[in-house]
Amino acid sequence: MQGYPEVAVLRYGHRPGRDDRMTTHVGLTARALGADRVLFPDNATQSAETVRDITGRFGGPFDVELTEELNATIEGWEGVVVHLTMYGERVQDVEADVRDAHVDQPVLVVVGGEKVPGDVYEHADWNLAVTNQPHSEVAGLAVFLDRLFDGRELEQEYEDAERRVIPEELGKHVVDVRESRSDPRSPSEAQSASEDVDEE
Amino acid sequence: MQGYPEVAVLRYGHRPGRDDRMTTHVGLTARALGADRVLFPDNATQSAETVRDITGRFGGPFDVELTEELNATIEGWEGVVVHLTMYGERVQDVEADVRDAHVDQPVLVVVGGEKVPGDVYEHADWNLAVTNQPHSEVAGLAVFLDRLFDGRELEQEYEDAERRVIPEELGKHVVDVRESRSDPRSPSEAQSASEDVDEE
Repeated sequence: MQGYPEVAVLRYGHRPGRDDRMTTHVGLTARALGADRVLFPDNATQSAETVRDITGRFGGPFDVELTEELNATIEGWEGVVVHLTMYGERVQDVEADVRDAHVDQPVLVVVGGEKVPGDVYEHADWNLAVTNQPHSEVAGLAVFLDRLFDGRELEQEYEDAERRVIPEELGKHVVDVRESRSDPRSPSEAQSASEDVDEE
Repeated sequence: MQGYPEVAVLRYGHRPGRDDRMTTHVGLTARALGADRVLFPDNATQSAETVRDITGRFGGPFDVELTEELNATIEGWEGVVVHLTMYGERVQDVEADVRDAHVDQPVLVVVGGEKVPGDVYEHADWNLAVTNQPHSEVAGLAVFLDRLFDGRELEQEYEDAERRVIPEELGKHVVDVRESRSDPRSPSEAQSASEDVDEE
């Protein structure tokens, strides 16, 4: 997020077909809650495409990368590595330390998919648990990012969006901002439309 | 959660097969982050079974219900209804009001799956957005519950668990608490074992 050292989210492991939706949700959650970049295993091509498509329509900056070097990325990370796991230390006990480190260091957040090897636990600066209960890697990532940024991620603005949702008490209000971008003479004449947005 | 009026999470819509994992994650996230109960559409039998199984092993109280009366449940709810949607009001703008209402009223949290009809928007006391970006209903639910309970859900203890994870800086520490429960003479002799827990 602008004004902070980089936050990247690495999805460790992906089974094409079975994990497509979860991996996509990891990527979209990373983007919506303040991360700058997501790294997927190189077989997660469909999830990468979906997250890039959403970024194209709803704005960025947000990068999606495919890599076959998951372990090397973790081991070579110049900054701090936080591995989210139900076996780790309680988020409420260590979040202040992670925020302190993030003042001047990039953070790599590792989110497990399939079984995470012991090496990842060893290389992590923090093995961190959002509850020590089994639930969802997407939920864990969301709560962690919200606490890492202390809620400031909810105020971020997206650049180069084609459309933007206007918060409403009732109903769906989506503004098409392409026209105003392509025509600098009428920046305020954004087309407004009530349309449906596919949430995935 | 103990000490609070009830919080129930209603998953609106479910496509067997395609949605099993997301619906399961909605249920597990509800349990782990302080809700008392989840209601699934009656075709979500597999997700219900998984969430009940986890509750049996890791403790409760937490109820899982299947219902064919989603709309009637929302319309007849005696308390406040919060519908999570990317089109809604910003969570940071309305969360204090929701917390105030929750002081003495049960909260029903509606989490969309397939397309949510306009009726649900109308019946909700709040249509609430955890960011106005497309991401994940599981992530939205997680951040909402964490803010509703103001982090206190992370301190909750589970009753009648068979096993419990002990937070660790490194490694996996799972305690089998069945022996101590069944033998009141040796409550402290809980079996300790490093074992793997399937996170889903």
